[in-house]
Amino acid sequence: MTDTLPTGSNVSIALLHYPVYDKNRQVVATAVTNLDLHDIARAAKTFGLFRYYVVTPVAEQRVLAQRIRSHWQDGWGASYNPKRREALELLQVTPSLDAALADLDASFGRPARIVVTGAQPRPDTVSCIEMKQLLLDEGQPFLLVFGTGWGLTEELFARADFAIEPIKGAGDYNHLSVRSAAAIILDRLLGER
Amino acid sequence: MTDTLPTGSNVSIALLHYPVYDKNRQVVATAVTNLDLHDIARAAKTFGLFRYYVVTPVAEQRVLAQRIRSHWQDGWGASYNPKRREALELLQVTPSLDAALADLDASFGRPARIVVTGAQPRPDTVSCIEMKQLLLDEGQPFLLVFGTGWGLTEELFARADFAIEPIKGAGDYNHLSVRSAAAIILDRLLGER
Repeated sequence: MTDTLPTGSNVSIALLHYPVYDKNRQVVATAVTNLDLHDIARAAKTFGLFRYYVVTPVAEQRVLAQRIRSHWQDGWGASYNPKRREALELLQVTPSLDAALADLDASFGRPARIVVTGAQPRPDTVSCIEMKQLLLDEGQPFLLVFGTGWGLTEELFARADFAIEPIKGAGDYNHLSVRSAAAIILDRLLGER
Repeated sequence: MTDTLPTGSNVSIALLHYPVYDKNRQVVATAVTNLDLHDIARAAKTFGLFRYYVVTPVAEQRVLAQRIRSHWQDGWGASYNPKRREALELLQVTPSLDAALADLDASFGRPARIVVTGAQPRPDTVSCIEMKQLLLDEGQPFLLVFGTGWGLTEELFARADFAIEPIKGAGDYNHLSVRSAAAIILDRLLGER
């Protein structure tokens, strides 16, 4: 264990709108939410991330996400609030997780390690303290994957290289919003304290 | 320093919609946002907090916040998503910070210590590690205050008992949403890791 802090420059985050579970454990595509784009982009920028992928197979939803990005990037919003522009520069809208992985592969010249997150305890999770050590290997890209709806599918957990242990508070209530969970995990991995 | 974790049962959070700065450093009242209610209530519930005060002097805004609470508390939402009900049970809508403080005084039989938060570095802030030690005094109520808009006023910083140091990431970008900042600070003070 060392106190060296990873810079985040090899870390990206993906927000998956498909495939995720709904409350009845059916696999669905969820809708893109304006505040998910802003909040997670601002957290990604704060913690020095490489990219923030918003993943949805629904073409209209990708157009919507792009339109929000453009509003703050080139439109009226860019001069009204330049801090949002800076954050949304990290945002890339992709049709699938594989498209995000291909983008990272092209950027770093090697495949990203997939790191999944979820609210349920499960075997073989890694702690943020352990994960932090792995992130110090700055030539290796990592993709932190967060699910919308009721969370990522079992298939994705099976495919991932690492699963981060759930965030635990005082009791057994574990229903943070994805925006809060992403902020906390980025802070645990990359925040100065 | 000890590894004992405060339970959060003496800790409350207040989200201030007035008085806060706007982008031109004018003191304004901001609008209540649906996701601020949900995200911060869910984080407060996760970390075992006593109460979550949403503070606005605008009567119509208090009615709106109460209506959202009721929807998930007693209405259709309570059976659709009981986890939101549990979180929103912590929510109290008050017209002023003093009303929130009076409520804590009545509940604990002693005045709460006011702990303010902000994105700008300033003298005499305490770290979350220091603050955590203070929270172990479980008979003493603490109120963590977060500002909407462009942050809490100088008057409030002058009045507070403690100011928590800003969250720092890799660079100098410090524009987290209040939802993200609240989640991170609750995790730093009360999360297991």
